[in-house]
Amino acid sequence: MKNTQFLLAARPEGEPKKTDWECVEVDVPAAQDGEVVVKVHYISLDPAMRGWMNEGKSYIEPVQIGAVMRAGAVGEVIESKTPDFSVGDHVYGHCGVQKYYVGSPKAVGFHKVDPNIAPLERYLGVLGMPGMTAYFGLLETGLPKEGETVVVSGAAGAVGGVVGQIAKIKGCRVVGIAGGADKCKYLVDELGFDDAIDYKGEDIHQGLKRTCAKGVDVYFDNVGGDILDAVLTRINMRARIVVCGAISQYNNTTAVKGPSNYLSLLINRARMEGIVVFDNAANYGKAAVEMAGWIAEGKLKAKEHIVEGIETFPETLMMLFKGENFGKLVIKV
Amino acid sequence: MKNTQFLLAARPEGEPKKTDWECVEVDVPAAQDGEVVVKVHYISLDPAMRGWMNEGKSYIEPVQIGAVMRAGAVGEVIESKTPDFSVGDHVYGHCGVQKYYVGSPKAVGFHKVDPNIAPLERYLGVLGMPGMTAYFGLLETGLPKEGETVVVSGAAGAVGGVVGQIAKIKGCRVVGIAGGADKCKYLVDELGFDDAIDYKGEDIHQGLKRTCAKGVDVYFDNVGGDILDAVLTRINMRARIVVCGAISQYNNTTAVKGPSNYLSLLINRARMEGIVVFDNAANYGKAAVEMAGWIAEGKLKAKEHIVEGIETFPETLMMLFKGENFGKLVIKV
Repeated sequence: MKNTQFLLAARPEGEPKKTDWECVEVDVPAAQDGEVVVKVHYISLDPAMRGWMNEGKSYIEPVQIGAVMRAGAVGEVIESKTPDFSVGDHVYGHCGVQKYYVGSPKAVGFHKVDPNIAPLERYLGVLGMPGMTAYFGLLETGLPKEGETVVVSGAAGAVGGVVGQIAKIKGCRVVGIAGGADKCKYLVDELGFDDAIDYKGEDIHQGLKRTCAKGVDVYFDNVGGDILDAVLTRINMRARIVVCGAISQYNNTTAVKGPSNYLSLLINRARMEGIVVFDNAANYGKAAVEMAGWIAEGKLKAKEHIVEGIETFPETLMMLFKGENFGKLVIKV
Repeated sequence: MKNTQFLLAARPEGEPKKTDWECVEVDVPAAQDGEVVVKVHYISLDPAMRGWMNEGKSYIEPVQIGAVMRAGAVGEVIESKTPDFSVGDHVYGHCGVQKYYVGSPKAVGFHKVDPNIAPLERYLGVLGMPGMTAYFGLLETGLPKEGETVVVSGAAGAVGGVVGQIAKIKGCRVVGIAGGADKCKYLVDELGFDDAIDYKGEDIHQGLKRTCAKGVDVYFDNVGGDILDAVLTRINMRARIVVCGAISQYNNTTAVKGPSNYLSLLINRARMEGIVVFDNAANYGKAAVEMAGWIAEGKLKAKEHIVEGIETFPETLMMLFKGENFGKLVIKV
């Protein structure tokens, strides 16, 4: 049985290029004691992966040169030498960008998922890390109150769409920022956002003025750069800015653009705070129950953007940075 | 009786120039009903004054062109047409840059101060707004815990010196950043800081590495710019950055330098939060009692930098931006 793996061949400067990857075919070894073999069905593509390719201190170890690229994935156990998992179990974990994961379940954080409750790919989106990121980031750091205005960037992405819907559930006015009229229409018509700003079609300052007459109380930032700076000029007293990501800056070859308007935090006694979803691992279960309830009630919708074929990985990853994905981006292996 | 007043003649571009001020001599009018006449003894010079000279939304109204420049001051009531204040009372309030204030006590927030407890100028420093800024900013936003490392910039200034001393009282390791070997020696030898970084004599990155081996838990920022960016590279998990000011940026003619390393907030789940002292007005009394206790015990020391003569105002103000003051900068009228 042959495995296809994408190895990190070089640390990218700026945008990851094809030559930063090496695609190899190797035999799938048998599981050793304590190990499993998992056939990967869906691989998650996330902006955070760009950071994992860099050297240096971060919230997680960088991927080593020559190692299989780290990625969340869902798959099926096809061989098991541990009592914790049985053949036929479906699991989520950091399987990496490959067709088969062989190794310890613990090393990649496997936990079981149930394909009878939701399609497998959903465990990479609203029922997975992006959903958890949205849930904890918004509720525990954004602290939205009923009647407040919540703005979210990357709103048609995996995290942003969930942030906006949860903010609606909590009684907020919700404005999404996304690139393209179709995405904005989707936010309002399908996800129930109150309004949306197409940053590719409208000046962002003008858009914020148009949609946030009462200012911004919570800003959930997935993009950084000019959009963060623009929102900083519209925040209200004691606003909360959740720093979840900065996809506009991840491929910079020059320094990250710091928010020039950060002194608005002073004027408005506001706060900017970073989040990393893994900190909430102990409470994922509770969150999943609540979100499953919202899904069942039709209050929380999910959308995956599925691209077929692991061989598309280098190009598919770039869709994230070009803003080409529409919903949670996954590769069907 | 003649009054000398400094009026704002023009909104400065960059550093305030002499021509941005108009110095006028006018007669001191008699007090009307409800008004007082106060002879100003000491005028406070604060970095925040630079912001008050700009047009546009801030936490306080800009000073209007042609108006007396706003400034905190202490003085003595020499005429009173209100039962709230008597001739001979000493008061603190926003008297402005002038020899006599004539008007309503309420309009400038007068409250009585006692020259028998402390010299009058001290009510502009450790017993005044800078002291309150340090107290509430550090304790309520910085949230220092015993054993943590607290770094403060502008450490030899009116706010910074108090921040560091309170952090010591709370059992923290305290590192001050200041410009010049004499200031750094003063921080360690006189104020009891654990260490100091002379940013004019030592690379700031190197200095932080040298003095903060265990990283930075609380950073109280008075300066912004490159120093903020450097500290961001050294913060610990769940660090708190108190944004009190950004004196390095106030005279910019180009955009403020945003902190390029702000994504360190994400990596470290850290927080950056702005403060404005006026929000704590209801609790000034309680803070003053506690700080007076520390002063009595010798745990909290004060230093004023007194310049004589109101006519020196334009040049004296610039000392703040050149880092030439050593302790709380005041003009003795």
